[in-house]
Amino acid sequence: MKKIAIIYHTRFHSVEKIASEIAIGMELVDGVKIALIQCSEAQSRIAEINDADAIVFGSPTYFGSVSSEMKVFFDSTSEIFMQKRWKDKIAAAFTHSGSPSGDKLMTLMQMMVFAMQNGMIWAGMDLIPNENYEVPNEWSDLGAQSLEVNKLGSWIGLMSQSDARRGIEISKNDLLTARIFGKRIATITKQMKS
Amino acid sequence: MKKIAIIYHTRFHSVEKIASEIAIGMELVDGVKIALIQCSEAQSRIAEINDADAIVFGSPTYFGSVSSEMKVFFDSTSEIFMQKRWKDKIAAAFTHSGSPSGDKLMTLMQMMVFAMQNGMIWAGMDLIPNENYEVPNEWSDLGAQSLEVNKLGSWIGLMSQSDARRGIEISKNDLLTARIFGKRIATITKQMKS
Amino acid sequence: MKKIAIIYHTRFHSVEKIASEIAIGMELVDGVKIALIQCSEAQSRIAEINDADAIVFGSPTYFGSVSSEMKVFFDSTSEIFMQKRWKDKIAAAFTHSGSPSGDKLMTLMQMMVFAMQNGMIWAGMDLIPNENYEVPNEWSDLGAQSLEVNKLGSWIGLMSQSDARRGIEISKNDLLTARIFGKRIATITKQMKS
Amino acid sequence: MKKIAIIYHTRFHSVEKIASEIAIGMELVDGVKIALIQCSEAQSRIAEINDADAIVFGSPTYFGSVSSEMKVFFDSTSEIFMQKRWKDKIAAAFTHSGSPSGDKLMTLMQMMVFAMQNGMIWAGMDLIPNENYEVPNEWSDLGAQSLEVNKLGSWIGLMSQSDARRGIEISKNDLLTARIFGKRIATITKQMKS
Repeated sequence: MKKIAIIYHTRFHSVEKIASEIAIGMELVDGVKIALIQCSEAQSRIAEINDADAIVFGSPTYFGSVSSEMKVFFDSTSEIFMQKRWKDKIAAAFTHSGSPSGDKLMTLMQMMVFAMQNGMIWAGMDLIPNENYEVPNEWSDLGAQSLEVNKLGSWIGLMSQSDARRGIEISKNDLLTARIFGKRIATITKQMKS
Repeated sequence: MKKIAIIYHTRFHSVEKIASEIAIGMELVDGVKIALIQCSEAQSRIAEINDADAIVFGSPTYFGSVSSEMKVFFDSTSEIFMQKRWKDKIAAAFTHSGSPSGDKLMTLMQMMVFAMQNGMIWAGMDLIPNENYEVPNEWSDLGAQSLEVNKLGSWIGLMSQSDARRGIEISKNDLLTARIFGKRIATITKQMKS
Repeated sequence: MKKIAIIYHTRFHSVEKIASEIAIGMELVDGVKIALIQCSEAQSRIAEINDADAIVFGSPTYFGSVSSEMKVFFDSTSEIFMQKRWKDKIAAAFTHSGSPSGDKLMTLMQMMVFAMQNGMIWAGMDLIPNENYEVPNEWSDLGAQSLEVNKLGSWIGLMSQSDARRGIEISKNDLLTARIFGKRIATITKQMKS
Repeated sequence: MKKIAIIYHTRFHSVEKIASEIAIGMELVDGVKIALIQCSEAQSRIAEINDADAIVFGSPTYFGSVSSEMKVFFDSTSEIFMQKRWKDKIAAAFTHSGSPSGDKLMTLMQMMVFAMQNGMIWAGMDLIPNENYEVPNEWSDLGAQSLEVNKLGSWIGLMSQSDARRGIEISKNDLLTARIFGKRIATITKQMKS
């Protein structure tokens, strides 16, 4: 049994929605146990996080980097860094903002640097932009037989987009992309020998 | 009279198209002389470049960075670096790829680092994503009275998108954004005292 | 008279020390008024910041990005962003950590992206690494007639280093580099027409 | 048997030296076959590269990014990208320049983005800066029983430094750091199930 912790900060539910979609994707892989952890809980659930085989970080992009709430958690992990507690765990990340690019790449880079400083191993996206993807039967709730994925064009990690002010919801393409991303991270976590 | 050099590499005309749109924007500013220079000509026109008050760099994004053609030019400028020939000139950049994000931010960052190493002063985008912009009378060829600008959400420099394989052309929004960007760079160039 | 605000976060005095060295450099330029503002005060002194011609951001590098304290301030500026209050102001940045590289470039990039999203104009370092620099008479307190500058090799902004655990203090080279950097930022601020 | 390809570009031997040190580190791990490939040979040896379980990229940092020679190779891999030939291979990178920081982080980022676009899995450094490391008996040629490692402070990948103009050679610390890095990459490559 492999354990995966998804640590995220959400303000208006978008990041939380993506976190749960990633978890749906992970559940398609046998032998994986997923914990969804809000970053406000992360310090109190640190033993559970330290025990995970993989950690996925999720944050909105505010001004081209993770939210201050997420950074408060990052900055609280000095002992984990010094003791190399997360060394060789799988790491991955996702971020969300209101525009297609929106400097989200910077946020993914910041989370990647944080993970690398902790000696983690990074897994990203393997989907070619606008690749047509057959939706598995298990995900019939998406209401589509096939969808284009990775439409924003991101590889370091997962990007998604919505803009409540303009009535733009997260697209089905982004939801499916998140599930595939989750499945991939879980698969890679299982491929690593202890 | 202020002189601006736009140095670009283009393979399938998209970057060249954006370069010429930026120039259209610059022409709205009085007292500015613009030179459009393909990167294959840049070494032979280096005196003209060294004489400019501002240099704008444009490249497609290939694998998350400037094209090798553009990098060949960058790598040829060691003497310019050592002699600080470009010190205090205004710098700006634009890039183009097939998907909305497409790791274009990395390309802009790379060009920014190159400019900073040469002691240049960086000007970016000042448009809020999806801001509605009144099209000036001079640009009636765009066939719209107002358009949303900076739709991709980029600030370090200008991003644009098209995908010939899928029949997606550069949007009018991107064209107008390029013109406004050009106008801004020219205006800032004029605001710098010699 | 041009006004410059230096907004910084310091935990163990190193960033504060560099902030004051930058201010010393700025004072060599006539007609410049400098405000040193700790990031905990920044929200209450926001009118003063909004009124400045240039803003310099300083933060330690923690885990490859600005401290959470600094990010709390960044995240509080949404209205400034929407109203474009900082548009066309000069921006610059500095960061400090315990090792020579220490992923400080990421921190400078993060501050640069933040400044660019606010439509600011970015000024960096113009010193070639290990360039020998004549110390001006005004800075005789440094106790050296000439010093090598920009020894860490940074251009986007200013990097400095010290490590209290190993008894390594900020070098004179870094102190002089900070002063020259301050002088440059003040000079560029004066070169911009209103 | 796991196969590792080290693809590098060298102009003045420093990158080649580091490549061979990484290979020395890898040889400490049983069951690993290493190919050292200059980037000028990479296109003609592409079958061998495609067959590897891990690819390590090495380039000098020129103006904050990989050399144009390396970028020519990157830009030649479009078919590999479209066919996902490198998907799930381990990737890692190293870079070298004349100053401690020298914007080398940008070069590592660029190689990381390239690897991620190819669906690779990224392994970096797990050493705390200035950590004291016992030199293994096999490496007695280093002439030291213990050395401080990761002195530059890099995690995304390996950084090293030398400056022929100032008579500064690559330090023993950097050489040992390269060997440990090589050993780590080989170990992680073996930990991935096929």
